[in-house]
Amino acid sequence: MQRTVDYINGRVVMIDQTQLPAKLVSIELSSPQEVADAIVKMKVRGAPAIGVAAALGIALASASANDTEDDYTHILQRAADMLRKTRPTAVNLFWGIDRTLRTAKEALENNVPVPQVKQIIEQCAVAMIEQDEEICRSIGANGAELLPDEGHVLTHCNAGALACVSYGTALGVIRAAIERGKLIHVYADETRPRLQGMKLTCFELAQDNIPVTAIADNMAGMLMRKGRVDCVVVGADRIAANGDVANKIGTYPLAVLAHHHGIPFYVAAPTSTIDLSLQTGDDIPIETRSRDEMTHIEGHRIAPMGIEVINPSFDVTPAALVKAIITEKGIARAPYKQSLK
Amino acid sequence: MQRTVDYINGRVVMIDQTQLPAKLVSIELSSPQEVADAIVKMKVRGAPAIGVAAALGIALASASANDTEDDYTHILQRAADMLRKTRPTAVNLFWGIDRTLRTAKEALENNVPVPQVKQIIEQCAVAMIEQDEEICRSIGANGAELLPDEGHVLTHCNAGALACVSYGTALGVIRAAIERGKLIHVYADETRPRLQGMKLTCFELAQDNIPVTAIADNMAGMLMRKGRVDCVVVGADRIAANGDVANKIGTYPLAVLAHHHGIPFYVAAPTSTIDLSLQTGDDIPIETRSRDEMTHIEGHRIAPMGIEVINPSFDVTPAALVKAIITEKGIARAPYKQSLK
Repeated sequence: MQRTVDYINGRVVMIDQTQLPAKLVSIELSSPQEVADAIVKMKVRGAPAIGVAAALGIALASASANDTEDDYTHILQRAADMLRKTRPTAVNLFWGIDRTLRTAKEALENNVPVPQVKQIIEQCAVAMIEQDEEICRSIGANGAELLPDEGHVLTHCNAGALACVSYGTALGVIRAAIERGKLIHVYADETRPRLQGMKLTCFELAQDNIPVTAIADNMAGMLMRKGRVDCVVVGADRIAANGDVANKIGTYPLAVLAHHHGIPFYVAAPTSTIDLSLQTGDDIPIETRSRDEMTHIEGHRIAPMGIEVINPSFDVTPAALVKAIITEKGIARAPYKQSLK
Repeated sequence: MQRTVDYINGRVVMIDQTQLPAKLVSIELSSPQEVADAIVKMKVRGAPAIGVAAALGIALASASANDTEDDYTHILQRAADMLRKTRPTAVNLFWGIDRTLRTAKEALENNVPVPQVKQIIEQCAVAMIEQDEEICRSIGANGAELLPDEGHVLTHCNAGALACVSYGTALGVIRAAIERGKLIHVYADETRPRLQGMKLTCFELAQDNIPVTAIADNMAGMLMRKGRVDCVVVGADRIAANGDVANKIGTYPLAVLAHHHGIPFYVAAPTSTIDLSLQTGDDIPIETRSRDEMTHIEGHRIAPMGIEVINPSFDVTPAALVKAIITEKGIARAPYKQSLK
């Protein structure tokens, strides 16, 4: 499958994930505004993917700026401010923006002329595409050993190729296990309200002929009670210094259920998802999305009039429920305060 | 609001729940076949409601039979066989059928002529409508004391007026608490795949001006962790002799979450839901419904091609996670083997 986010001929090319699974459509973006809009509308989503997309948004701003240093810095800063406001929870977004901005700042401080800084920024952003792929492969290699030789892995939302440039974090672990000859069947939570598990995880696993069964989010407990889940692997949007994990709403109840049934609960994420500046998960900003995502499905109203809804996009799983955090640099275990550093 | 199931001028009149919340439409049924079809298609659903509907189906068969005793018995038996095959899990269905059949059998054994037996059966079935209402009021009165004077109650699926003739079991407890001056706000799980929580529970609570917030099934954990749920009250489709409870899929994970957070988990159900013939919940037959309910929402396909789905309609919550079972006869607590008898 093509890359989820790519940079081709000076444009950002991405799969429009809002059209999956019905249509596999690529869109081309030529301005940081378009990138910001794609992130807000979740045409691109997934912590690693929006980190790379944001960096590419900075690269588009950089390319379009004129060559006066003041103007250039101003354009980059404005693009950064705009991209920062798109979504609050996944720290990779800020990491992608900061990394490109810092690279530009350092080059300018070293008196590199703006035209060359532009090249450096483009190279920096494009390198992040390839690095993301390498990182996912490493996460997969590190995590594969944790999966059973034969068994059922439950995952939530989409922490797959579609959440990264390719391969995936949680699904990268599953792909790597299968590449190593393990016989893995996946249970995919459909993941209300936006159904990324059903629409994206099932789509990409089916494309790769990896056996997958979609379940409603409320079916995981029954499967665990019947002994039909051997482990849980999910991604992360932000991990605090103590190992608390913010991930798609519905992750926390899975962790509680896994704990109750003695099933290992793993988190797979690049180190760019770890935010050592936050002591605990309670400090992680949690995005609230539109009430329409709850009241309507596929454009059809399901909610009666006159009721309230809530729509928090993420929840926080305390570190105590996380058996291990699988990163590209290795497997971190409790106490996470030490291991994550 | 009108009764969910009623018997008017020799016809079964019911709210077509598949059209809620968009349209509040009544349908009139004049044969046991039509009643069976309405149960299969979930135009009427909820354990107490389908118990009454099945009894009324027998009454329709009785009314249409001719007056030869052999023919009459045969017609009733055929209707019973058909109604028994509609849905397997809620024991109330079988209870409603058996109660009317037994009444007919006893009358015939006492040499009551068929025309009078027909009257007796109609009276028996109609009495079940009124009894169901009384039972729900009693469940409400018994359960109201368990709710906090002010607080948030989480419920799953619809165990409300729409699951009974009126008033409801779990929602009956909430209604009774509110009638007694308690300040209750309800969190309603939307309850995938058929969304009875969103479509039915929210609808009927909004009609009664009871404050309700719809949540995705996967949001309950986050709310509990934040201390925003004071107790959980759900209905039941069948309760085994040991207190294990079969109820809508997604009930069991709520019970685990409530246990993890030290939140009381209550089941509200009439004694007709208790099946002392089954030792444990593992013996309760669990209905599997169509895969379309998982792959499509509101007629729109959400699933990619080439994937598996599962669709068990119910799960089993072990008695150990149930703080109390609220019935019309009082509140049962562990050990349930004794208290349920």
